[in-house]
Amino acid sequence: MADGLGAPLAAPLFERLALIGLGLIGSSIARVARRKRLAGAIVAADAAEDVRKRAAQLGLADTITKSAAAAVEGADLVILCVPVAVIGEVVQEIARHLRPGAIVSDVGSVKSAVAAAFAKHLPAGVHALPAHPVAGTEQSGPDAGFATLFCNRWCILTPPDGADPKAVARLSEFWAAAGASVEIMNPAHHDLVLAITSHVPHLIAYNIVGTAADLETVTQSEVIKFSAGGFRDFTRIAASDPTMWRDVFLNNKEAVLEMLGRFTEDLTALQRMIRNGDGQGLFELFTRTRAIRRGIIAEGQETTAPDFGRRAGEEEDFS
Amino acid sequence: MADGLGAPLAAPLFERLALIGLGLIGSSIARVARRKRLAGAIVAADAAEDVRKRAAQLGLADTITKSAAAAVEGADLVILCVPVAVIGEVVQEIARHLRPGAIVSDVGSVKSAVAAAFAKHLPAGVHALPAHPVAGTEQSGPDAGFATLFCNRWCILTPPDGADPKAVARLSEFWAAAGASVEIMNPAHHDLVLAITSHVPHLIAYNIVGTAADLETVTQSEVIKFSAGGFRDFTRIAASDPTMWRDVFLNNKEAVLEMLGRFTEDLTALQRMIRNGDGQGLFELFTRTRAIRRGIIAEGQETTAPDFGRRAGEEEDFS
Repeated sequence: MADGLGAPLAAPLFERLALIGLGLIGSSIARVARRKRLAGAIVAADAAEDVRKRAAQLGLADTITKSAAAAVEGADLVILCVPVAVIGEVVQEIARHLRPGAIVSDVGSVKSAVAAAFAKHLPAGVHALPAHPVAGTEQSGPDAGFATLFCNRWCILTPPDGADPKAVARLSEFWAAAGASVEIMNPAHHDLVLAITSHVPHLIAYNIVGTAADLETVTQSEVIKFSAGGFRDFTRIAASDPTMWRDVFLNNKEAVLEMLGRFTEDLTALQRMIRNGDGQGLFELFTRTRAIRRGIIAEGQETTAPDFGRRAGEEEDFS
Repeated sequence: MADGLGAPLAAPLFERLALIGLGLIGSSIARVARRKRLAGAIVAADAAEDVRKRAAQLGLADTITKSAAAAVEGADLVILCVPVAVIGEVVQEIARHLRPGAIVSDVGSVKSAVAAAFAKHLPAGVHALPAHPVAGTEQSGPDAGFATLFCNRWCILTPPDGADPKAVARLSEFWAAAGASVEIMNPAHHDLVLAITSHVPHLIAYNIVGTAADLETVTQSEVIKFSAGGFRDFTRIAASDPTMWRDVFLNNKEAVLEMLGRFTEDLTALQRMIRNGDGQGLFELFTRTRAIRRGIIAEGQETTAPDFGRRAGEEEDFS
C-alpha cells in the first residue's frame, strides 16, 4: 500500500495478542496488528473506563477488559503499554495468568528498570523480552494512535542473557511486520543512547518552556505571539504525556544525569564564547551541527520539508 | 487566494523597493512583493555572484546588481536583508546614495544593535525604521524563500523616538500586505523577548547537537538512528544559517546571557528533582508546560498536526 505498511499477512504471527494499556502506543499497535493481521485475536485491557469505552467505539480489539490478568489468559504475545513506573505492579498482577511459553514484552522508554521488574516478577517458562519502539507523537490516548506510527522507525529489543533466540526472532518479526527496523542492544546501553536522543531533549524542552512561563520581564502572551522564532518547536515535545515522562526520569536517573552533565558543561563553554565575543568558536559549532541533521534526513528519520512542512499551502511557482 | 495572501494590490505601496541581500528572507520579500504588487519596481543587490545568478534565473527582481549603493538609488523603500554584523558596513556604503524621504529598514533578529548602526550612519532626511519579521525556516539562500513565509507571522517594528508616524504607517502597511501582523516595540524589549523565544532556543539546540556529536559512549550513528525520540526536532533549528546566528549572539549578548542564566538556574533545579526522585515536582512542571503550547496553537503560530504532520501518508479510517 501507498503508506508503506504493505498487505496483511497470509497467516497471523501470533494466536492471541494481549495489549495492556491503550494509549498512543498501545492503540497504535492494536491498529497495525489488525490491519496487517499480526494476531488471530486481539485482547486489550485498560484501567481507565473512558479509555475502554473509546477503544470499544474505535473497534481497537476483539475483547476489551478492565483486568490485565483476564486479558493475558491464553495470549502467546503480551505487550505492556503502560508507564514504566507501573510495569512492576502489572507484571505481578498478570504473572500467575500467563500461558506457558508466552512472550512478555513492553514499549517503555527505559529498559534497565523494566528488565529488573521482568526478572523479579515473571515466572519461569515465559519469555521476558523488553522492547522499545522509538516512535511517538506529543499526543496521548486511544484517539492519538495510528497504524503507521512505527513505519521507518526503530524498535530496540533488549533480551536478557540466555533469552531464547526463537522467541527473539518471533518478536522481531512482529515489529518488522508493523513497519519497524529491529535493533538488539543491552539495556544499559539503550538507556544511555536514549538519554541523549530522547530523555535530555525532553528535559531541556520542558525546562525552557517553564523558564519562559516564569519570566517577569517578558509576558506569557509575548512568548506565545513570537514563538515562531524557534521556541514553538520545544513546546511540541514539552506537550508529551507528563506521567510517562516523570517515570522516564525517575527510572533512568543515572544515564540522564550523566548526559545532562555533559550538556551543561558544553553550554557553559558556549556561554563563555558569547561573553568573550568568540565569533569563530560560535561559527564552528553552528557549522558542525548541520552535518548531523543531514545524516538524520539521509537515514529517513526526518522529513526534508523546511520548517517541518508547516509552510502554508502554496507550492512556489514563481519564475 | 487559498494560501491567504489575497489578490495583488490595485496600486503599489512603494515606487521602488531595494532589497540588499537575497537569502531566505530577502528572496521571500521579493517574491511576495512581486506577487502582491507591493512595489512598482524591485531592485536587488547581493554581494555573492552565485546568488545573483540564481536570483536572476528565478526572476526575483527587475534589476539585480552587485552594488548596494547602486541598488538604493531612487528607492523609496530600502530593506537590508543581510546578517546583523554587516549592517553597519552596508549602511555606510549606501548612506550617500539614498533618496531623501526614503524608508530604510532591515529584517535582523536583534534590534538595539541595528538601531545604533542606523542612528550612527544614516543621513538626516531618511526614515530609519528597524524591523524584524519573526519568520523563517532552517534553510538558507534564494531558493529557500517563498511568498507566504510571512503569512500569519508577526513583524516587529522598533521605530526610534521621534520617528515619523506616516513612515511607520507605510512600512506597517507593507508588512501587513505581505501577510504579517505588525507590532511596535522598543528595541531593548524586542531583544529580551527574542532572547527567550528564539535566541536561547537556538543556542540550546546547537548545544545539544554538539554534545551528542562529541560523546564517546554513544556513537554518532546511534544518535542519528534513534533521533525520532525527540532529538531530531533540535537538529532542525541547529541547521540554521551559522553566520546569521553567530551575529545574533554577538549582537544580543546581554539579553541572551540573562535568559540563559534563568534557563540554567531552572535546569539545575530540575536536575536536583531527578536526583532526589521528586516525581511530584517533575509531574507539576510537565503538566504546566502543556498550557503554553495550547496558547501557541490557539494563536495560529503552530500547526495542530501531531508530530508536526510528519505522519506518513495514511488518514486513519479504522472503525
